[in-house]
Amino acid sequence: MLSALDLARRIDAGTLTPSAVIELCDQAIVAREAAVGAFTTLDLAGARRRAADDALKGAPLHGLPVGFKDIIDTADLPTEYGSPIYAGNRPRADAALVAMTMRAGGVMLGKTVTTELAHLQPGKTRNPHNPAHTPGGSSSGSAAAVAAGMLPVAFGTQTGGSVIRPAAFCGVAGFKPSYKLLPMVGVKCFSWHLDTAGTFAAGVADVAFATAAVTGRDLRVDRGKPVAPRIALTRTHLWPEASEAMKGAVETAARLAAAAGAHVSEVVLPPILEDAWRAQATIQDYEAFRALAFEYDRHRDRIAAITRKLLDHAATITAEDYDAARRTTKRARQALADLMAGADVMLTPSAPGAAPDLGSTGSAMFNRLWTLMGAPCVNVPGLFDEARLPLGVQIVGRFGRDRAALEAALFVEAAIADRP
Amino acid sequence: MLSALDLARRIDAGTLTPSAVIELCDQAIVAREAAVGAFTTLDLAGARRRAADDALKGAPLHGLPVGFKDIIDTADLPTEYGSPIYAGNRPRADAALVAMTMRAGGVMLGKTVTTELAHLQPGKTRNPHNPAHTPGGSSSGSAAAVAAGMLPVAFGTQTGGSVIRPAAFCGVAGFKPSYKLLPMVGVKCFSWHLDTAGTFAAGVADVAFATAAVTGRDLRVDRGKPVAPRIALTRTHLWPEASEAMKGAVETAARLAAAAGAHVSEVVLPPILEDAWRAQATIQDYEAFRALAFEYDRHRDRIAAITRKLLDHAATITAEDYDAARRTTKRARQALADLMAGADVMLTPSAPGAAPDLGSTGSAMFNRLWTLMGAPCVNVPGLFDEARLPLGVQIVGRFGRDRAALEAALFVEAAIADRP
Repeated sequence: MLSALDLARRIDAGTLTPSAVIELCDQAIVAREAAVGAFTTLDLAGARRRAADDALKGAPLHGLPVGFKDIIDTADLPTEYGSPIYAGNRPRADAALVAMTMRAGGVMLGKTVTTELAHLQPGKTRNPHNPAHTPGGSSSGSAAAVAAGMLPVAFGTQTGGSVIRPAAFCGVAGFKPSYKLLPMVGVKCFSWHLDTAGTFAAGVADVAFATAAVTGRDLRVDRGKPVAPRIALTRTHLWPEASEAMKGAVETAARLAAAAGAHVSEVVLPPILEDAWRAQATIQDYEAFRALAFEYDRHRDRIAAITRKLLDHAATITAEDYDAARRTTKRARQALADLMAGADVMLTPSAPGAAPDLGSTGSAMFNRLWTLMGAPCVNVPGLFDEARLPLGVQIVGRFGRDRAALEAALFVEAAIADRP
Repeated sequence: MLSALDLARRIDAGTLTPSAVIELCDQAIVAREAAVGAFTTLDLAGARRRAADDALKGAPLHGLPVGFKDIIDTADLPTEYGSPIYAGNRPRADAALVAMTMRAGGVMLGKTVTTELAHLQPGKTRNPHNPAHTPGGSSSGSAAAVAAGMLPVAFGTQTGGSVIRPAAFCGVAGFKPSYKLLPMVGVKCFSWHLDTAGTFAAGVADVAFATAAVTGRDLRVDRGKPVAPRIALTRTHLWPEASEAMKGAVETAARLAAAAGAHVSEVVLPPILEDAWRAQATIQDYEAFRALAFEYDRHRDRIAAITRKLLDHAATITAEDYDAARRTTKRARQALADLMAGADVMLTPSAPGAAPDLGSTGSAMFNRLWTLMGAPCVNVPGLFDEARLPLGVQIVGRFGRDRAALEAALFVEAAIADRP
């Protein structure tokens, strides 16, 4: 994989150029893209032109190449939302996230595969670790492109678990920041209270570097030794749904972090958070029926069956159900804040296990609650199952404490990497 | 003016058809549009075709014609955001609000004039009460079209005061619901924590009817006598900025409401709300610099000077300033909730006075705080200054208590209308 931070340091040191990085990506693309299928559109010619621009010198992103999930609008490349309804769609403007990335000195290399409308119907992408397995969804291409070394940085979005889950399945770092830390302007909406943009890169320090560069926020975690965090191991009511390998991965991560000096305790979530987990689906579906009203009412036959079925069901959710789910959310956020007063972060599975076979994109069950809470989440890579498929563990931070979440994730990542 | 509720009742009674309503609008358009300039695009032919559809029978909006501010995406009509950057722009999809309006049996009659990118650069619209005066902004055309009897219902948006202010200047009812009650999917973004869609119609019962129809929520206030509300007269720290006529209007409204049976008290806002008023500008501008990054970075010369100047300034706002403004907002919301425990609504000016001359769109100073608070606001029409220009008074409700805000506004509206 290409470490964004390592590349940036080499560019800073004058031993590498943005143009040379494009060629590194191109080599990986030549070698891997046919089997992985991470991109909907590649613009190597445009990227080569932009990477040669002297104005990139000293820019926060150093001229590094970046990919965007194809539900993120780009004025210079097609944006089809993974849906035949949008075949050939070419937005008039870049999404805010794209324009901010360019502003920060990023070079757009291409658009990455999304599931249809960022829901569950898979695209063409395969897991770089085993092509018989899903890369996860809905940000399938962004996770797979980074995992295959074809891009150092890619952006995606999460409504249920669409950043953390594919990052876990592909064995890369995935960072879903606090709700609205990355703007959603110009990103195809599924659920406006949930949709959250996030960052994929090789390791935790790399996602922190890229997110810091794009936002101008103090999120970098590569300057100095991370402080040992207070970690609350959180099994949640879904623990029985996790595979034995995943249970082992979370417990291994906890043990290694403790051995490295972290204070590890265990918390049991109060019942209101299980209620909130259920409320996430109500909010998501109620909003999707409205956010996708145009597609559902005018192009119903061109929506995949799995998405159509969701929207058929969503039509029956009442405003009262939705308002009750919103009230539950508010109470759950308060309960979570109280619960986390004694810890910096929680440690919990990123997914029920390793990537399942192609055909589904896996389950977001271990992600939905944290998306609803607006909490920063980081997939920490480094562990594998017996079949050498990645197993991701998840660090969940407190709302607005994104840097603390990244620091703790870096600590756990290092503890895993340095294990005897 | 055309009362949406009255038209709907006549359609229900079989004494009017949706097609006949289109002709009523057309007559007003022929008589007034040349002088008022409320529309960017009119689609009378399309509206006539859709109004003849039998499927509209029994639909919540009864086949009534509706206009949409031209920052709201429409697949069937151009959407130019009031900006030359978007000349000829034709979105691929309808905004959620448009699709929901169609779903509810609305008939799109046209797009209404917005200021450039919903900021301060005026469009062509003039005040229907006096063409030398502004209709207000940024939802200029929506307010003016309703005031001139050219439409019974129109939608707009408010980031500072862009629903309540033009409604006040044009002498119509304007309803800015609680934040996100109407979805913003497919609406050009200026500031994602502030932008709020709202409804224009002849009277308070009409905005309630139309918003209820589109959302499927229990917001109608036309079924039974309104209960006398507890009203807190709120002068705010901006009271010295209000004209004598406006001060008189607010005090008259309070007196008439009290005479009609309302319990009227007076509240002084705690200092945190003045801090929040200032924080609104920080949040708005910080987000606008990102939401409009594409326009600013790629088409700077095609942005009006007043907007360019705002964005030049916005570039200097730091993430720390922004985060502090967000924290202030959170504390202010709590303080406001505490303050309003003893009242149903507040009564305060909708604007500093009547509509100023053309050249500006007036000031949003009396609106910005309430937009930031996410509180439902209603402009109550019915009072005028000595020059016969409308003076609007504003009812501000508690977040999520939209129906109570509308009921109180209806009560005040009736008290004004029934004055001796």
